[in-house]
Amino acid sequence: MPTVILNDTSHDVWVDSATISPENFGMEAPPHAWSIRKQTLRGGRRDGVDLITVETGGLSFCVVPSRGMGLWKGAYRGRDLGWKSPVKDGPVNPAHVNLLSNGGLGWLDGFDELIVRCGLENNGSPYAETSPDGRQTLTGLHGKIANIPAHYVAVHVENNAPHAITIEGHVDESHLFGPAIRMTTKITIVPGSKSLTVRDEFTNLSDQPVEMQILYHCNFGPPYLEAGSRFVAPASVVVPRDARAVEGIGHYDVYGPPEPGFSEQVYFLDLQERDGKSLVMLRDAAGENAVALRVSKSQLPCFTLWKCTGGLNDGYVTGLEPATNYPNARPFEQTHGRVVTLKPGDSHVAEIGLEVLAGAQDVARIEQEIKTIQDQGTPRIEKGPVEPFAKVE
Amino acid sequence: MPTVILNDTSHDVWVDSATISPENFGMEAPPHAWSIRKQTLRGGRRDGVDLITVETGGLSFCVVPSRGMGLWKGAYRGRDLGWKSPVKDGPVNPAHVNLLSNGGLGWLDGFDELIVRCGLENNGSPYAETSPDGRQTLTGLHGKIANIPAHYVAVHVENNAPHAITIEGHVDESHLFGPAIRMTTKITIVPGSKSLTVRDEFTNLSDQPVEMQILYHCNFGPPYLEAGSRFVAPASVVVPRDARAVEGIGHYDVYGPPEPGFSEQVYFLDLQERDGKSLVMLRDAAGENAVALRVSKSQLPCFTLWKCTGGLNDGYVTGLEPATNYPNARPFEQTHGRVVTLKPGDSHVAEIGLEVLAGAQDVARIEQEIKTIQDQGTPRIEKGPVEPFAKVE
Amino acid sequence: MPTVILNDTSHDVWVDSATISPENFGMEAPPHAWSIRKQTLRGGRRDGVDLITVETGGLSFCVVPSRGMGLWKGAYRGRDLGWKSPVKDGPVNPAHVNLLSNGGLGWLDGFDELIVRCGLENNGSPYAETSPDGRQTLTGLHGKIANIPAHYVAVHVENNAPHAITIEGHVDESHLFGPAIRMTTKITIVPGSKSLTVRDEFTNLSDQPVEMQILYHCNFGPPYLEAGSRFVAPASVVVPRDARAVEGIGHYDVYGPPEPGFSEQVYFLDLQERDGKSLVMLRDAAGENAVALRVSKSQLPCFTLWKCTGGLNDGYVTGLEPATNYPNARPFEQTHGRVVTLKPGDSHVAEIGLEVLAGAQDVARIEQEIKTIQDQGTPRIEKGPVEPFAKVE
Repeated sequence: MPTVILNDTSHDVWVDSATISPENFGMEAPPHAWSIRKQTLRGGRRDGVDLITVETGGLSFCVVPSRGMGLWKGAYRGRDLGWKSPVKDGPVNPAHVNLLSNGGLGWLDGFDELIVRCGLENNGSPYAETSPDGRQTLTGLHGKIANIPAHYVAVHVENNAPHAITIEGHVDESHLFGPAIRMTTKITIVPGSKSLTVRDEFTNLSDQPVEMQILYHCNFGPPYLEAGSRFVAPASVVVPRDARAVEGIGHYDVYGPPEPGFSEQVYFLDLQERDGKSLVMLRDAAGENAVALRVSKSQLPCFTLWKCTGGLNDGYVTGLEPATNYPNARPFEQTHGRVVTLKPGDSHVAEIGLEVLAGAQDVARIEQEIKTIQDQGTPRIEKGPVEPFAKVE
Repeated sequence: MPTVILNDTSHDVWVDSATISPENFGMEAPPHAWSIRKQTLRGGRRDGVDLITVETGGLSFCVVPSRGMGLWKGAYRGRDLGWKSPVKDGPVNPAHVNLLSNGGLGWLDGFDELIVRCGLENNGSPYAETSPDGRQTLTGLHGKIANIPAHYVAVHVENNAPHAITIEGHVDESHLFGPAIRMTTKITIVPGSKSLTVRDEFTNLSDQPVEMQILYHCNFGPPYLEAGSRFVAPASVVVPRDARAVEGIGHYDVYGPPEPGFSEQVYFLDLQERDGKSLVMLRDAAGENAVALRVSKSQLPCFTLWKCTGGLNDGYVTGLEPATNYPNARPFEQTHGRVVTLKPGDSHVAEIGLEVLAGAQDVARIEQEIKTIQDQGTPRIEKGPVEPFAKVE
Repeated sequence: MPTVILNDTSHDVWVDSATISPENFGMEAPPHAWSIRKQTLRGGRRDGVDLITVETGGLSFCVVPSRGMGLWKGAYRGRDLGWKSPVKDGPVNPAHVNLLSNGGLGWLDGFDELIVRCGLENNGSPYAETSPDGRQTLTGLHGKIANIPAHYVAVHVENNAPHAITIEGHVDESHLFGPAIRMTTKITIVPGSKSLTVRDEFTNLSDQPVEMQILYHCNFGPPYLEAGSRFVAPASVVVPRDARAVEGIGHYDVYGPPEPGFSEQVYFLDLQERDGKSLVMLRDAAGENAVALRVSKSQLPCFTLWKCTGGLNDGYVTGLEPATNYPNARPFEQTHGRVVTLKPGDSHVAEIGLEVLAGAQDVARIEQEIKTIQDQGTPRIEKGPVEPFAKVE
């Protein structure tokens, strides 16, 4: 399989900019045109950020090695995947993000991605602990991984049609006395298809067991999100996170229009599966366009729905968040056994399929697939926060 | 008006280095020679910093897009504008500034400018708040704006003589769940003149009201500051900030020589105006050279005088600080209504004129202009800190 | 003496990459071949890091101007000097290190050097203080100097054989209201020799007295560190830092094999000297290879031994740490008078000689030299932490 290494710090390999297309691999007349562009962005808070744009005719997306191999933006035939964050000058170089700002909410200073990983030492709410000698240790929202640049980045293209393209990246979250986890991500797309997969392997590089958490914050705004959009999922349990979420529990799966000042509502879900696979969807009001996520509970047992339907300028957005845990502060998750422990050398693999559904027929087909899973049982919708999902004050 | 865009992240425009002169615009034999140089600095803590130097024969100055469009250094005919900070290796890339260092005083790690903006979410003293779940939220000295790189930078030159030059820059202080303010600054100079104007427009990009503060920390050391230099202003009220300032209230407007170990003294002033304009001046002992600031209280109602006349190597400096507020911790300013609220889409405009006065005649003229304003009333000079200006312990 | 300036921010001098060899100085057929390579690293967390590699046939080493002129890696005839840190993607740009992370242990996020300086405002354990207005001021582990880029870097080569090579660098730790110390380091090697010297001059640039601390964290893993390696030093006193160190006091100078989960043990030593010089050594089990450090107590009165013999993947390492103080939190060191005070303009000089010993004869020679110093008196080995060395709880 032909490979172009764009960055390998251990061998001083660095490609500042490049355009890769079928011709580079001697592929004449591939069934679907595609191109990969590597840039190094300049100026503002993005100065020095490494960006890879993959175009495949229909589906396109950007990967940001500098921001932990997150998926920045995407589009399918002119319809944006992702959202309009109040961070308008991204992708932000992590050098300009102080994760401890604003009482541990500094992560938001760079938050503008379509898919951003939260972890690995922790994800979820920030929290403070006090050391025996009186130091306050603040652990910030959603961890560090999204703000660690990849030290290895490569593009692989399959020799044989349909010439699947894979962007590979390695990101280490590792330091003395700390966890030492390497994430090896492979983001794969088949030109001509309407889906991509993110396959991450988290390997414990240490000689001791290590604990980790991973959450995929998959964020969608218009046009998939609009008044009347629906979240469709084969839930077995739905739990409102707090009093604010309780207010909307009756219509947790329906979206309202942009409402300036809308305060976020968060729901914790247990999904049903069939053959070890689950599937959730966000579809527009007319049921004509949708995005779906395919996940496996053996890899990502928890699912969180984030509704943040404030004003269009304030980031009208919803987050579909498969994860190893719920995004409560880590100590709570630990108490409830929702932290992954890896033995030395062991790995945890997580895979997400992102699928674009174009046209009512496509949407109906996926809705039917979800219904088939849902048919195994009616969801229990809790009226208030309940343990072990949410912290009951 | 001819324009050269030096940086526009939203369109991938970046000019790494350039020299712009009248010839570039086909201006033959302009009345006053001028040049604009754009550099990207390398090495040390300034690595990657974007610098624009404007030379106009007499008056010259540098703008640092990477540091929130601050004015770094200036000079008029060999006489330095600005000060000699203990930060000798600036301008410092914000990536090397941790605003939370030293209990929230990390801002000082990069502080070396002639004019640095303090804001926008807060300015003034650092303060700590504790969240319901026990996290300490530390808000640092003087806010973030001076450490946010501009994402758009352009140079405009008027077609017609005297060919006013404007450096424009856009800086966003914006994130999810936070304020979303865009500063559009225009720094304008007419070649051949001894003055420049800084005109800033702060626009609320959000769908909700936003609060903001802005203070212009205009800093001068030798040769304008020396033993016997005077601060001249049409004050209506002068309030010492604290016990330390009380010690010097009797000669608050006169400067002593460099005194190693001198502890800063801060005075809060209410200025008088005439026709909606006010004017303050720092003049040397002989009254032969001075710098003046023109401000409008409708834009910047508060004025702070900062006397920091330590040793020459420790930053012998004075700050003339027009602002929307006094640089107390933000909660105190909020209590006293000195925080600007902007409705969605609304803007606050602030403009400062910086004028160099060369020669006794020039200085006397401005002194007379200030006297004319002052003639409206005698200043009330408080013997100690009084509310609503200063916190009374 | 021929000089090549690689970086001088005050004069806009920057050399992005270069290879310097005897030919550049017209030195034909020098007695020992050597070369100096300057690179600017790209990608990952090392993006923008400035690296200088000195090869002299036998001994080679790398200096990282971007990381406070630390010595990153070294080798002597294929035998590595330094250690394998869990930080595998270094040298890490300080822009990606938040010293306040993890309750003040953020320094570890970039810690992977052979010799890293700890200081200058503080070194040792992190600690918290609370301001009168309730802000917690967190002072991080080991200070800032290792994360401040040098603003001046030059290479000097002696005209006359044996053509000693010196890498010079200037690093400022300085800001308004803070200490203003310039470190001028000269790292010198004579091609063909098996040793190098690090000579640092710390100058108070301020008009007021300044306090400082400096510790040289000299770190060695395999092959010098292995089961049965010994630490040899002319101690007069050995004090375990805490209960954990007490457990190993009986064999504090002997190393075990890598033990996953091994918790660090720290010993505070007072060394003896002869003619104002002391000498310590780490030698392998067979006594065939060793590294030695030459220090002077008038410059660096304290010595700390750090045993951190965890798993090979977790950083099996020992630190030999000559310093002005013991790495307790600074307030404790201050109480015990182990903080250096510099008058305005004054300097503190510290010099370390690093020597590689190859072959049993070489090792025995140094062991004998240490024995000669040790003969002045038997060490007192404390059974537990005692003041003034360690904090007694």
